[in-house]
Amino acid sequence: MSTRYGFLGPTGTFTEMALRQSSQFANADDAERIPFASVDAALAALRAGDLDAAMVPIENSVEGGVSATLDALASGDPLVVIGEQVVPITFVLAAPTGIALADIRTVSTHPHAWAQVRAWMRAHLPDVDYLPGASTAAAAAGLVGGRPAYQAAVCAPVAAANHRLMVLQEDIGDNSGAVTRFVLVSRPGQPPAPTGADKTSVVLFQREDHPGGLLELLEQFATRGINLTRIESRPNGGRLGDYCFSIDCEGHVNDERVGETLMGLRRVCAEVRFLGSYPRADGVEAQVSYGTGDRDFVGARDWLQSLRSPSF
Amino acid sequence: MSTRYGFLGPTGTFTEMALRQSSQFANADDAERIPFASVDAALAALRAGDLDAAMVPIENSVEGGVSATLDALASGDPLVVIGEQVVPITFVLAAPTGIALADIRTVSTHPHAWAQVRAWMRAHLPDVDYLPGASTAAAAAGLVGGRPAYQAAVCAPVAAANHRLMVLQEDIGDNSGAVTRFVLVSRPGQPPAPTGADKTSVVLFQREDHPGGLLELLEQFATRGINLTRIESRPNGGRLGDYCFSIDCEGHVNDERVGETLMGLRRVCAEVRFLGSYPRADGVEAQVSYGTGDRDFVGARDWLQSLRSPSF
Amino acid sequence: MSTRYGFLGPTGTFTEMALRQSSQFANADDAERIPFASVDAALAALRAGDLDAAMVPIENSVEGGVSATLDALASGDPLVVIGEQVVPITFVLAAPTGIALADIRTVSTHPHAWAQVRAWMRAHLPDVDYLPGASTAAAAAGLVGGRPAYQAAVCAPVAAANHRLMVLQEDIGDNSGAVTRFVLVSRPGQPPAPTGADKTSVVLFQREDHPGGLLELLEQFATRGINLTRIESRPNGGRLGDYCFSIDCEGHVNDERVGETLMGLRRVCAEVRFLGSYPRADGVEAQVSYGTGDRDFVGARDWLQSLRSPSF
Amino acid sequence: MSTRYGFLGPTGTFTEMALRQSSQFANADDAERIPFASVDAALAALRAGDLDAAMVPIENSVEGGVSATLDALASGDPLVVIGEQVVPITFVLAAPTGIALADIRTVSTHPHAWAQVRAWMRAHLPDVDYLPGASTAAAAAGLVGGRPAYQAAVCAPVAAANHRLMVLQEDIGDNSGAVTRFVLVSRPGQPPAPTGADKTSVVLFQREDHPGGLLELLEQFATRGINLTRIESRPNGGRLGDYCFSIDCEGHVNDERVGETLMGLRRVCAEVRFLGSYPRADGVEAQVSYGTGDRDFVGARDWLQSLRSPSF
Repeated sequence: MSTRYGFLGPTGTFTEMALRQSSQFANADDAERIPFASVDAALAALRAGDLDAAMVPIENSVEGGVSATLDALASGDPLVVIGEQVVPITFVLAAPTGIALADIRTVSTHPHAWAQVRAWMRAHLPDVDYLPGASTAAAAAGLVGGRPAYQAAVCAPVAAANHRLMVLQEDIGDNSGAVTRFVLVSRPGQPPAPTGADKTSVVLFQREDHPGGLLELLEQFATRGINLTRIESRPNGGRLGDYCFSIDCEGHVNDERVGETLMGLRRVCAEVRFLGSYPRADGVEAQVSYGTGDRDFVGARDWLQSLRSPSF
Repeated sequence: MSTRYGFLGPTGTFTEMALRQSSQFANADDAERIPFASVDAALAALRAGDLDAAMVPIENSVEGGVSATLDALASGDPLVVIGEQVVPITFVLAAPTGIALADIRTVSTHPHAWAQVRAWMRAHLPDVDYLPGASTAAAAAGLVGGRPAYQAAVCAPVAAANHRLMVLQEDIGDNSGAVTRFVLVSRPGQPPAPTGADKTSVVLFQREDHPGGLLELLEQFATRGINLTRIESRPNGGRLGDYCFSIDCEGHVNDERVGETLMGLRRVCAEVRFLGSYPRADGVEAQVSYGTGDRDFVGARDWLQSLRSPSF
Repeated sequence: MSTRYGFLGPTGTFTEMALRQSSQFANADDAERIPFASVDAALAALRAGDLDAAMVPIENSVEGGVSATLDALASGDPLVVIGEQVVPITFVLAAPTGIALADIRTVSTHPHAWAQVRAWMRAHLPDVDYLPGASTAAAAAGLVGGRPAYQAAVCAPVAAANHRLMVLQEDIGDNSGAVTRFVLVSRPGQPPAPTGADKTSVVLFQREDHPGGLLELLEQFATRGINLTRIESRPNGGRLGDYCFSIDCEGHVNDERVGETLMGLRRVCAEVRFLGSYPRADGVEAQVSYGTGDRDFVGARDWLQSLRSPSF
Repeated sequence: MSTRYGFLGPTGTFTEMALRQSSQFANADDAERIPFASVDAALAALRAGDLDAAMVPIENSVEGGVSATLDALASGDPLVVIGEQVVPITFVLAAPTGIALADIRTVSTHPHAWAQVRAWMRAHLPDVDYLPGASTAAAAAGLVGGRPAYQAAVCAPVAAANHRLMVLQEDIGDNSGAVTRFVLVSRPGQPPAPTGADKTSVVLFQREDHPGGLLELLEQFATRGINLTRIESRPNGGRLGDYCFSIDCEGHVNDERVGETLMGLRRVCAEVRFLGSYPRADGVEAQVSYGTGDRDFVGARDWLQSLRSPSF
């Protein structure tokens, strides 16, 4: 039986590129790629057991966290991240054959993409109207057949190629180094083996919205020498000022220092949602500060044992 | 000459409601309301001097921070917040007369609104298609005249009324207590006078992405007994892992403890962007912990002076 | 065979009173009391195996820590505290029969005792000379027989009685609530069972004299909700500015939160010397703050285990 | 009129050596040296106006803090430190001519000195009796004339010379690098000018004995990048567990970062006793970490001013 991988579709999205470049997908013998119309839909299929894993965007270097993904992972049946991919984001302006730049009155694309081409638009198409699309690939697809309500789409080069659109201008992103980080998500299971260059993701729900609460949580990491690589606050349950914190840190749940940090968070938080440990896309090894290596923890535990039960 | 207030339009948005309920607008003799198609456009007009102030959404209790506003305030010519409004968010399903629930194949609304009516849609219109709209009010407006590509809109009650649409179902939001916080923004000037129930907003850019950096920043607040009411990380300049922090705290820039905190942040950050001090919408007075009142600071300063230059 | 208890002698010292009131001594069937001329001598005999335990003063509420004891415990073969006693310190002015207040030219006592009767002496014997004695009891003993170089001693009531001295004035201490804390020390072994009202003592040697080092050590306690009851810095090895820290904290080494704190200290310190867990003399139960009870730790450990090795 | 300098006498003490090597004394035109029998007596004379300054020991690299000095500075009329001296401590065994090592049955010296020659005594005079003396110099002086109750004294080389005693053995201290730190104390006045290599001394009284209190105080230093060079807890008022903290830190009261730290301490402590700013004996310049230089503070203050009162 094949391994079923969902992704935020349609075909031609950056998310599909992320899936194709992931080692899990590449190494699977008989892998299927199944597009979904939304992050929610992909994760619902994963939770329902219809998928083995799903690739979804989680963070863009220009636009920030992807709320739909952050929120979908933070509630509902538990899911965990088992891998991450970072994909450079390159936008083209694509249109059906025969359309010239001067003909364009309306452009469609996903709102995140639109936000990243504002400067180019201001300079070259200052009077154009914007029509939000469900995805960059959907905006491209919408130009094919029928009588589209717009003349051009902002999309990935591959989406333009898929739909045989003409590329009027390449690389129109305001930030040429923009990347999006994607995560491969599965149902909970044995975490991937530690590699020495891992990340661990959690969502922290504070016990109560008490002053200094975030400081207290961050100290749980700092006391064990753990660096954070991402922190994001998300609304928690619909009251202004009530947040949970979505956090990535260096290290693997099997690392002693990460384990003790997780236990500390579990003790002082109302809830800790573990979102997995997985190899970093950038392969950067964790910095292990003085006294926080596995051997330090094991040595300390043996010593404590000798205090509690000395052998005479 | 009239006072010109911009807002995220069109007429009938929750943003317009926020503007109408703000005391600055209500107390202005000859105030004009000018709708803008985007937060960027409203703030650009404000920066250009075409407006006196602009009302924009900054945070939703369900969907979180409004990236467009956070990012527009964090860069470009300085702007400051001079007031805030919290507006309950109520969604209706609206359609032209003659359309029944069973006729609806496609619904349009702003993506944020769509995210907040997912449960109702799943229960009552499970097979409906979603067409993203530029705003909830625009989705309502699009149902009037021509041949709209959708049969119904999710919008505010006032937008349905404005366009003489029929309300098929009231209050379809998943979270009945949902609110959005709006801020009234102006060019920098004398901050509004302290009221005892104020907030101060800043954007903090770390010197470098050093481990424990956020902890260090939060300690600047904690050491002076200042509570945070909101913290949000935003990408900074397009490299993954490089964040700035958008923070609201209790108190007014004229309060001694807030002043010293701002100075401390200014010293240790690469940049601190001051986004204003303004009365809280909820009127909750700042908690002043031991030793952090203005009199404590003044007393301490006098004492220090007596140490440095004793009078014999 | 009898149980041999050493104490800082001679007979009649407050230390002997502390030993007599300790439950270990009181409950021993056939207990011997053996006076020693110094803390060093008593602890040397204990280390040599000539004693089962030794009672020594560790802290006075007026004079502070007893350096001889602190330093003797901090170096040499390991010893641990197994009990503590708090003894009210009452000083009398004692002299041989026939001596009147007006006859007194010179007074002898231990320097610590002298420091605690200064106000009385200033008021009643302003011109008296002071001759340091090895202990308050030795000063009393020295008045018996021969031709003592002084006319009166400041000592405990019991020492005056032991040597049949006349009490010229009772209760001459400047601070009527003065107490001394004594510790019963033994060679390392199984710690006394937890009582819920325990203390744990350690000596911490910093890795290097790095700025903020003490703060880092204190955070190891704070992160696990542990209160300190005593902290004292002591010179470490003879270089100015190089300290170790002698610390008592609430709780027992068998308590999970204390165990994890000790492990944390062990990891970040150059050396941690464990000085024992023992019932508090005042019987005050440890405050257990949110999330730091044994059940919280056990629950967190089970949870961590479930993350590392989920059972499918 | 002459400048009157008190010191802990008699002539020949290490304290006198410290006074002689201090620049204030050396540079005074017509300086008098006046010995006192105790630290208390010297400081009382200073407070009474009978002295201009007094040199007293404050810390020994082997024995730790000098309680009499710490406590005398922490209470009573305010005094401030205006200079410090570090003196190497070298002990000799001195006796009247004609006495051989084998003749010595009893040795006298100050208890602190005795503590520092224990190893030598154990090795060379294991059975000797110890008679406490009021000072090392007094022990030496006591060997002259009359019928002393002891045959030898442990004292400074200069004291042996002063009293024409024979030196039976030089340099008998257990720790050959031992030093004592002395402070020159005066009544409050204009602090010595900053040199870039200064120390500031304070005594901190906590508001109440609340858990984590010391951590809170240390954070006041850490937040402004100030390193501590000494911290010592002292009993405060005679209740066990009630401490004040005697602290030396880097920097001068005129430094901005030190000033703000002192103000912070003043605000959160029950009392802060300022014990002066003065040049360091070792001439080590203060480390100024990022954002804590005077220019950083001045820049931050100007910026804050511009936020509070922008000029239009």
